[in-house]
Amino acid sequence: MSVVESILSGDRLALSRLLTQIENNTPQGLAALDELFPHSGKAHLIGVTGAPGTGKSSLVNQLALHYRKQTGKSVAIVAVDPSSPFSGGAVLGDRVRMKDLGGDPGVFIRSMAARGSLGGLAETTASFAQVFDAAGYQIVIIETVGAGQGEVDIARLAHTTIVVEAPGFGDDIQAIKAGILEIADILVINKADLPGVEHTEKALKMMLELGHPVEHEMIHHGQKMEIQAPTVDKSVREDFWITPVLKTVAIEGTGIPELAEEIDRHADKLRSTGEWAGRERLRLTVEVENRIQESLWSDFQKRLSDETYRKVLQKVFDRGLSPWAAVKELMNGRRR
Amino acid sequence: MSVVESILSGDRLALSRLLTQIENNTPQGLAALDELFPHSGKAHLIGVTGAPGTGKSSLVNQLALHYRKQTGKSVAIVAVDPSSPFSGGAVLGDRVRMKDLGGDPGVFIRSMAARGSLGGLAETTASFAQVFDAAGYQIVIIETVGAGQGEVDIARLAHTTIVVEAPGFGDDIQAIKAGILEIADILVINKADLPGVEHTEKALKMMLELGHPVEHEMIHHGQKMEIQAPTVDKSVREDFWITPVLKTVAIEGTGIPELAEEIDRHADKLRSTGEWAGRERLRLTVEVENRIQESLWSDFQKRLSDETYRKVLQKVFDRGLSPWAAVKELMNGRRR
Repeated sequence: MSVVESILSGDRLALSRLLTQIENNTPQGLAALDELFPHSGKAHLIGVTGAPGTGKSSLVNQLALHYRKQTGKSVAIVAVDPSSPFSGGAVLGDRVRMKDLGGDPGVFIRSMAARGSLGGLAETTASFAQVFDAAGYQIVIIETVGAGQGEVDIARLAHTTIVVEAPGFGDDIQAIKAGILEIADILVINKADLPGVEHTEKALKMMLELGHPVEHEMIHHGQKMEIQAPTVDKSVREDFWITPVLKTVAIEGTGIPELAEEIDRHADKLRSTGEWAGRERLRLTVEVENRIQESLWSDFQKRLSDETYRKVLQKVFDRGLSPWAAVKELMNGRRR
Repeated sequence: MSVVESILSGDRLALSRLLTQIENNTPQGLAALDELFPHSGKAHLIGVTGAPGTGKSSLVNQLALHYRKQTGKSVAIVAVDPSSPFSGGAVLGDRVRMKDLGGDPGVFIRSMAARGSLGGLAETTASFAQVFDAAGYQIVIIETVGAGQGEVDIARLAHTTIVVEAPGFGDDIQAIKAGILEIADILVINKADLPGVEHTEKALKMMLELGHPVEHEMIHHGQKMEIQAPTVDKSVREDFWITPVLKTVAIEGTGIPELAEEIDRHADKLRSTGEWAGRERLRLTVEVENRIQESLWSDFQKRLSDETYRKVLQKVFDRGLSPWAAVKELMNGRRR
């Protein structure tokens, strides 16, 4: 049986090995990804993002438990985690998770501890989600630390994006700056048993009301991406979904059934308005563009001699050539 | 007088206008940047990064005030701020800052509220720092929200990188995951009047001690960058700087003189070991590479017909072609 056949028939070890190959960018990994792609497109991708300390991981665990117990749906979790090499954060995190979810064959958890670039991280996340989707997982949860634009972009590529806040964070100008509210399909105030929850709720609701309707454009690598695929007419979109604000205490399971209900309601809305396909197209477009950019850069490096590169950089170091002029020189050198 | 001459002679309005031009990527902006570049290379670039809620901005303000009062050095602040369009966070933040620092001609504050890509943000930050440096600002502080890899990379390109934590954050596995400890030249526990500060200090020190010596490599756009320029021998580096852990209460000014002292001590160390030049080279290399990648992508888009692009993407949307195969097809299309 081929790797792909093994994975399609539910072999967890084969799945796990393929994820490692994809992480390491091996040709076999890419070939298998290629073969699996036509089998993808069925899962509900849920992005969960929020600042450190909001209790995102507990929320994701409880949500997964809920899906398993109440609906029997299979759940895969991709935890995107720019870990410190100091702490082995991902490994530790996985161990904590195992306690709740370990041993259930309907759950698959994978952390990405890779300290790679955001570009690489985004691509690997997309590939992981595709593999889980093709392997038959019905719910794929992508969890990211949401304060950087890059991580936020990863989460927003899901069908449904959940932004997690916690009491206290809303009091600080910094928290308001994080710029992730506008990507929320569902806003969760976790740790809602802490003091100040009413204040946080009021502040967040006010900010949501002040906001404009979400525009479905991706700002990407300095270019405003024009999505080529037909998207839903904006007048339809404007009143199509009002971001609900939910309160949870994840470690006690409080509010989790209500959250799952809102997630379902969002999926129904996406499907009935045609936005489901729109988000699929957006995600695939971003993935193709990320991969093109990676190819362009690696082609460029191959064609340029190390010596030329070193010489031009040295001129920049000596302040005899501006970075901008250096780029022109290198781009011309490549074409010759 | 040309724009560049005006800026070199201290014209703040001309400086402010140029920053806007650079933000908007205008040809005039780039030309002025080019002209200013040979005048740069004198400022001490200080990166300050930390999660939302740690009080970074107050710390930066107090540090700037300290430099003004105690040393008379001129200070420019670049606040990199992926703002929400909802809140106008940057504008609000600037107003708060004005109260402390406004009216002093030796201080220039500029927020980047642009919701651009990280790539774009990194380039614009580098350009801003260059302009301030050329304009004669002796201290340039680059402040970023540090939880995403991208923002962290921006801050770490400074000569001296300060990571700000606050009590309570260290209790959470998530906080440990943030992966920014290893880039800290100086670690600050701000809000040190809050309960739990001893615990946070102990946890952070333990994590620092467990850590490996910082390796000066940049992981960048999925590629491990080989820095071409000669770097300092690693055996020298290993014992060259031990990250100090400082406690501050920024809003009261407590601990700020000690922080400024450590920053100076770090600059001295950098200069005496040759690391100062090493970090300059790293920063310029990253800037050149960012700009090359942007050029490659815009060249690619120009050469590819919209129709071809749309057709290939449609095949991907229909799951008839994998994203990976699509990239191959598009890259070949370009070369024909």
